[in-house]
Amino acid sequence: MRGKSPYGAPQLDVPVRLNTNENPYPLPEPLVERIAERVREAARQLNRYPDRDAVELRTELAAYLTKTAGHPVAVENVWAANGSNEVIQQLLQTFGGPGRTAIGFEPSYSMHGLIARGTGTGWISGPRNEDFTIDLAAAEKAIAEHRPDVVFVTTPNNPTGNAVPPETVLALYEAAQAAKPSMVVVDEAYVEFSHGDSLLPLLDGRPNLVISRTMSKAFGAAGLRLGYLAAHPAVVDAVQLVRLPYHLSAITQATALAALEHTDTLLGYVEQLKAERDRLVAELRALGYEVTESDANFVQFGRFEDSHATWRKILDRGVLVRDNGVPGWLRVTAGTPEENDAFLDAVRELKKEQSS
Amino acid sequence: MRGKSPYGAPQLDVPVRLNTNENPYPLPEPLVERIAERVREAARQLNRYPDRDAVELRTELAAYLTKTAGHPVAVENVWAANGSNEVIQQLLQTFGGPGRTAIGFEPSYSMHGLIARGTGTGWISGPRNEDFTIDLAAAEKAIAEHRPDVVFVTTPNNPTGNAVPPETVLALYEAAQAAKPSMVVVDEAYVEFSHGDSLLPLLDGRPNLVISRTMSKAFGAAGLRLGYLAAHPAVVDAVQLVRLPYHLSAITQATALAALEHTDTLLGYVEQLKAERDRLVAELRALGYEVTESDANFVQFGRFEDSHATWRKILDRGVLVRDNGVPGWLRVTAGTPEENDAFLDAVRELKKEQSS
Repeated sequence: MRGKSPYGAPQLDVPVRLNTNENPYPLPEPLVERIAERVREAARQLNRYPDRDAVELRTELAAYLTKTAGHPVAVENVWAANGSNEVIQQLLQTFGGPGRTAIGFEPSYSMHGLIARGTGTGWISGPRNEDFTIDLAAAEKAIAEHRPDVVFVTTPNNPTGNAVPPETVLALYEAAQAAKPSMVVVDEAYVEFSHGDSLLPLLDGRPNLVISRTMSKAFGAAGLRLGYLAAHPAVVDAVQLVRLPYHLSAITQATALAALEHTDTLLGYVEQLKAERDRLVAELRALGYEVTESDANFVQFGRFEDSHATWRKILDRGVLVRDNGVPGWLRVTAGTPEENDAFLDAVRELKKEQSS
Repeated sequence: MRGKSPYGAPQLDVPVRLNTNENPYPLPEPLVERIAERVREAARQLNRYPDRDAVELRTELAAYLTKTAGHPVAVENVWAANGSNEVIQQLLQTFGGPGRTAIGFEPSYSMHGLIARGTGTGWISGPRNEDFTIDLAAAEKAIAEHRPDVVFVTTPNNPTGNAVPPETVLALYEAAQAAKPSMVVVDEAYVEFSHGDSLLPLLDGRPNLVISRTMSKAFGAAGLRLGYLAAHPAVVDAVQLVRLPYHLSAITQATALAALEHTDTLLGYVEQLKAERDRLVAELRALGYEVTESDANFVQFGRFEDSHATWRKILDRGVLVRDNGVPGWLRVTAGTPEENDAFLDAVRELKKEQSS
């Protein structure tokens, strides 16, 4: 591990932080109070280990999925962990590991590959088209050739923002079953911001499909670290063999349960963010930038000969965006209208500088 | 993984639960209020990712260690994670892994071996004497022969309760350095209950020594899942390369910080529990049981021809103890005076039954 450095965006002190796809809206005060209330209750029994299987929380997560995806999901379909990173780690400990491989179509969420390597799973970087859509023929070929044990599909994709069409996911699933069969993990961390629907209904009759979710984005709770998955109950049973016992604290369970009581309010913020995201796409295009279609709470824009230099120039104007390693592109998170205005002012100035 | 079942004691609904070494004392109400207060503050920024490096929390943990062990520990010596299980998992991801091995002296905390296997680390079950002390000559021989990458020493040992003498730990450290050199992880989960002192001062000049701790026991916060370690800063740097980013939630950090403000009260409960533990040892011996010396908040007692049958008989009397897989022995956690009375009544009845 010599010479390596830990994963993570710079945590800089900047007026406008639009670099880590956080939800810009603080939790509403009634929810803050409800969290304090539920945590107070949980703290009174903190000397006891938490519910190891987080049954109440998984039940409420299942109810949320059932309501928002219009597809029945039960407690035995759901598993939860400390952030979707831990969900993915548990999946790779279960279905990956030494001598096994996982594939993702890159650029995508870089933690998939990092966690694969961390669990001793070989990582295969699959292809994408120039426009960041998945090249289905090439992907099917890669799956047939490498016969990976786990296939990751991120939709909406991070850091590019575009959603993967359901028929592409279905074709990848079929290819993965024909090749091995392998687990297909659909990472829907940003799905609540999508113009389209969750792929949850695809779980029907597909025992090797996993949908991964998080409360970090739509629920405005990045600080909570609550990721979850929906899948066939056999997947949930298998993951329970590798999870560390009592991995999810009583405090985390209480806080997540409080947030789930306020789903309607939080999804209202999501609607505002979707409108702001669409505005960012439109205004960036009007300014002459190339913009990748976005179904997420962020927008990838370019192209820049030196994207790091542009990142720095935007930072000099008090706005932190993400230089996410896609050559020629940068990524900006949809913030509040004021934050987005500050960002748009900054990039407008850059355009002026260039043309003067 | 077919045929395996997840780790964990039965979570049964029994009047007196003395099976998982929980602290029987609920957190004092002023601390509960302080947790609610700090969590409320944290919840107001829950839309943001937590401090990835948990600097404030690690600073306060270092202060706690400095104060209680009388040995200076700084923030860069300390790392924290979701329970000592995650600390151990991160250590094994860092220093173990496929092609590497770890040794423990069994019976000991069974998660060491389980997490080793979960991280692809080969597990070597080292020997103990009949009285559950470490057979130093045999242990040194095993280390020289297997040249393990990680050596676990649990003191006080779980599930047997006895502490390992400092000179034995030192000898094992020397043997481990001569053989490889390997990391020596001293698991001090129960050290606050010990008649002796923490081995923290041994960190001086020993860069391959790690002391692992938890807030689950002495802090009465099993539900919080807060484990930590103290070691050379290079160990902390190395662990940060494998930790999942933002692994420790803002809520967990806030709750742990609140508990650390109430250290003196909580350590007062520890003193009560030590007295109760000593009473359990004395009364069990007076009843004619064999009892292993205990420096923990639990007591191993025996011997039984069929320890599972005895476990069941005690359970039938409303008291849940732990059948922890050491043939002929059972383990009881020191509870409140009333809980311990209930337990002692139950085993007294068993003795009467036998002699009648």
